[in-house]
Amino acid sequence: MDMQTAILLISCPDQKGITAKISNFIYQNNGNIEHADQHIDNQTNTFFMRIEWSLKGFRIPKEEITSEFSKLAIKFKMKYQLSFSSEIQRAAIFVSQHTHCLYDLLLRREEGQLRCNFPLIISNHSDAKKIADNFKIKFCQFKVKKGNKQETEKKIIELLKKEKIDLIILARYQQILSKNFVNLFTNRIINIHHSFLPAFVGENPYGQAYRRGVKIIGATSHYVTQELDAGPIIEQDTARISHRDSLDDLKMKGCDLEKIVLGRAVRLHLDRKILVYNNKTVIFD
Amino acid sequence: MDMQTAILLISCPDQKGITAKISNFIYQNNGNIEHADQHIDNQTNTFFMRIEWSLKGFRIPKEEITSEFSKLAIKFKMKYQLSFSSEIQRAAIFVSQHTHCLYDLLLRREEGQLRCNFPLIISNHSDAKKIADNFKIKFCQFKVKKGNKQETEKKIIELLKKEKIDLIILARYQQILSKNFVNLFTNRIINIHHSFLPAFVGENPYGQAYRRGVKIIGATSHYVTQELDAGPIIEQDTARISHRDSLDDLKMKGCDLEKIVLGRAVRLHLDRKILVYNNKTVIFD
Amino acid sequence: MDMQTAILLISCPDQKGITAKISNFIYQNNGNIEHADQHIDNQTNTFFMRIEWSLKGFRIPKEEITSEFSKLAIKFKMKYQLSFSSEIQRAAIFVSQHTHCLYDLLLRREEGQLRCNFPLIISNHSDAKKIADNFKIKFCQFKVKKGNKQETEKKIIELLKKEKIDLIILARYQQILSKNFVNLFTNRIINIHHSFLPAFVGENPYGQAYRRGVKIIGATSHYVTQELDAGPIIEQDTARISHRDSLDDLKMKGCDLEKIVLGRAVRLHLDRKILVYNNKTVIFD
Amino acid sequence: MDMQTAILLISCPDQKGITAKISNFIYQNNGNIEHADQHIDNQTNTFFMRIEWSLKGFRIPKEEITSEFSKLAIKFKMKYQLSFSSEIQRAAIFVSQHTHCLYDLLLRREEGQLRCNFPLIISNHSDAKKIADNFKIKFCQFKVKKGNKQETEKKIIELLKKEKIDLIILARYQQILSKNFVNLFTNRIINIHHSFLPAFVGENPYGQAYRRGVKIIGATSHYVTQELDAGPIIEQDTARISHRDSLDDLKMKGCDLEKIVLGRAVRLHLDRKILVYNNKTVIFD
Repeated sequence: MDMQTAILLISCPDQKGITAKISNFIYQNNGNIEHADQHIDNQTNTFFMRIEWSLKGFRIPKEEITSEFSKLAIKFKMKYQLSFSSEIQRAAIFVSQHTHCLYDLLLRREEGQLRCNFPLIISNHSDAKKIADNFKIKFCQFKVKKGNKQETEKKIIELLKKEKIDLIILARYQQILSKNFVNLFTNRIINIHHSFLPAFVGENPYGQAYRRGVKIIGATSHYVTQELDAGPIIEQDTARISHRDSLDDLKMKGCDLEKIVLGRAVRLHLDRKILVYNNKTVIFD
Repeated sequence: MDMQTAILLISCPDQKGITAKISNFIYQNNGNIEHADQHIDNQTNTFFMRIEWSLKGFRIPKEEITSEFSKLAIKFKMKYQLSFSSEIQRAAIFVSQHTHCLYDLLLRREEGQLRCNFPLIISNHSDAKKIADNFKIKFCQFKVKKGNKQETEKKIIELLKKEKIDLIILARYQQILSKNFVNLFTNRIINIHHSFLPAFVGENPYGQAYRRGVKIIGATSHYVTQELDAGPIIEQDTARISHRDSLDDLKMKGCDLEKIVLGRAVRLHLDRKILVYNNKTVIFD
Repeated sequence: MDMQTAILLISCPDQKGITAKISNFIYQNNGNIEHADQHIDNQTNTFFMRIEWSLKGFRIPKEEITSEFSKLAIKFKMKYQLSFSSEIQRAAIFVSQHTHCLYDLLLRREEGQLRCNFPLIISNHSDAKKIADNFKIKFCQFKVKKGNKQETEKKIIELLKKEKIDLIILARYQQILSKNFVNLFTNRIINIHHSFLPAFVGENPYGQAYRRGVKIIGATSHYVTQELDAGPIIEQDTARISHRDSLDDLKMKGCDLEKIVLGRAVRLHLDRKILVYNNKTVIFD
Repeated sequence: MDMQTAILLISCPDQKGITAKISNFIYQNNGNIEHADQHIDNQTNTFFMRIEWSLKGFRIPKEEITSEFSKLAIKFKMKYQLSFSSEIQRAAIFVSQHTHCLYDLLLRREEGQLRCNFPLIISNHSDAKKIADNFKIKFCQFKVKKGNKQETEKKIIELLKKEKIDLIILARYQQILSKNFVNLFTNRIINIHHSFLPAFVGENPYGQAYRRGVKIIGATSHYVTQELDAGPIIEQDTARISHRDSLDDLKMKGCDLEKIVLGRAVRLHLDRKILVYNNKTVIFD
């Protein structure tokens, strides 16, 4: 578990020999495969793979793996992403007034479920400040008003760069990010939406669910794209409700869903188990 | 279990004394309450109740209960529905080419889960004929073509009247019923929609779900109203899928959901456990 | 919601007129029933009821309700429990080294899900001290060694009396309480067991589950009785696992179950929605 | 989908190069890998793999694959099982009086979910005869009495041999098979037990669950071994119940679970997605 590993996430047009060539690349350089999972999408004839191998005794130095592997990658027209278990990602949490997801992420990290650092919490409200202080995390409040959105986002982006943020987690953040902002962090902004998407897009999904009289509520974590609540879905879960549940009950029962679904999505992302294509996700779990 | 009971489904503006008056009505006429469940919708200040009592020794004859109870009902401005466990409802099943829900309903009835008779199966295809014959049920095929819809529905309605049908079950019936037809059977047509409504309304919901990349699929049973897939929801359930599931896998996994959700909804209806208000359902389970 | 209510939990042999007499008692004294739910166990012919009514305008003062109601209770041989929504219960949390359930209870209370006070945390370890300080709750550590159990329990009991504790929550507390201790708090000690009881009673249930190769894990909250892990079950839930999950993964996935199941059980208890009979629970949800 | 594939299920001590050697074996003989999934059990350092490749253009004839692959297998001390998608297995269904699982399997096969033939139904009762006739399947009734068990099993075994049965499905079969019988069909007898194993082993699990007052019921499909209800678990599922559910309700709700869990287990077996080791299963789903 402690040993360092390399992880490749690969997608390319399917053809014979891909698995053989990749596993040979690792074997001939004295690597031991710890996990390998592949998937073929028959509709688009696309090959997907996640392969993780131990770096103990691996003959290629970490910094040269990319250049060595790229020969293979070019031949098979692969898109790939190489990462190392030793790299601890830095995630910023964005939050508004509901702090249950924020709290949950911080506790999951303390319990060892999330391999990342949380150096920064950003909010348009002050509610989360106490929690940030408690966990000794830098807290920055940006009041978003009519007319200052562009300017505010600029300041936030500078801050994210300064803190070398790899991942942004919208843990019930009530502001909509601009297209420009989203483009800077493609597939690196995870949102939790408190409904079973695509049902109840947009504002107040619990209110929408209550009015429609559904018997099950849900939560959805997804990567943020330019279209609201329409990005690639990472994880979803649902819970049973009844006519006895008031709108407040829905919100309360939903909290547990939101925490679990966001926690799972962040963990999958940090463990490099998500591959995005065609606005969908392949989850190597 | 074998004993005959009377069942009242009641809704009215909430006020003091409703429960006392109703339970007194039953007690003073020597009835024994077997089930009683009430619910108050605080938003609309509406009182809902389902109360079931044994008719053994009850002093009011069955045919006079309505007139006796109506005095109380008028006083409290109640809407109510009286029924008797001894009345076995007659349900017609409408089906197209997918017959798994049809089969499932017939088997649930044989196993004693559904207290009803199925005297009639109606279809726009011939696939279900063999099953109808097998279970010795009358089968009527109506080919719906461009231009003959009104005429066909007229024939179907005549048939339903002739067979004294109380309940229509759309067990994967691919035709849309006219507003006129729907109005004749208010809250007496149950449909199974193969998605988690309100997501994926309309045609080919599994295809819609597959394209959106959801991680969970669902099924919804609801009363049919004039607006497509927008009637009061009776029951829903969901099942987990993954990127490994093809569209065919979704359909296969969905079959189990559809059968269970439709089976539960029909059972609740037959047991008079559903009260509709404001395009929602109160389920006394 | 803010209004004061009285709650009666009643069990007695079933007979005609119980509901009528109880609802009349409330109505004739000008009470408005807000919730009423009843259940009859046909096997033992026992009647169960939870009835909650508004005290606004109720003609009997709170302190006299018991003596007034007792006349009815005697007639029907009722066991009953009267409580008031205005009474905020005082709960002590017992915890060992795993603190996720403790944290979860404290946060649920802050979010308004649990109507109680937590004046006291008791542990045989020091891990939870920091959390107790953080939430400004009294923390008492009792090191249980061979031979000092009786003496330690005596001290704990004194402390519980001093703090006027109504409810004890064993939030992953690894010590077994003596029969004497348990008898002092009948149906007032809630435990969370990290398995789907009655499977995997006793120590290390995740280890047992892992060795057996189950495909689903569970958690169970129950009242503590003299027999280990055999008390009346309040709530259970389950989660899917696979052969890919290591023992550590089971523990991690189990954490979420434990928190949710314990949280629900404590909430049901605080809201007086649990009635115990025959080592089982009737849950009026 | 229609194309013929070969499937290898492999287990062996883990070491470097296994994946590379296996995928090379396929690639160098012009096979295209359609699915590959591997798993390493870190506790026992065991490597598991399921690999499926297209036989279109594969240079080794089907009948020689074993001898060619065995060179590799010996080198890595592999246990392996080779099968072909073109081989349609023959399964016998054993049933007693409850026929819902039998019916469900027959219907799933008709819907194309189960790639097998059902040439034979065996029962100790006559209830299923009508269904067998209906589906045109040979039905054999063996009345098991005190003293004739050994003799009866002998006749059944002869029949199974004559019908070339590959798989036995105990679809609510109430007789216990002898050790001798079980040994003849190691990992080829699938049972459905109507509880969440290991809870409620043996007779009348619903009765046991009802008496214990559980809030969730379950069903478990497993391979039959010499110890009752203790074989490797293939699949499990659970459903929520409440105090309102009578024993009959438990049985009814359990039926749906049993059908789904058994259906999934049989499908996994037929698709060669199950590998048994250490009395557990690795499921390549």
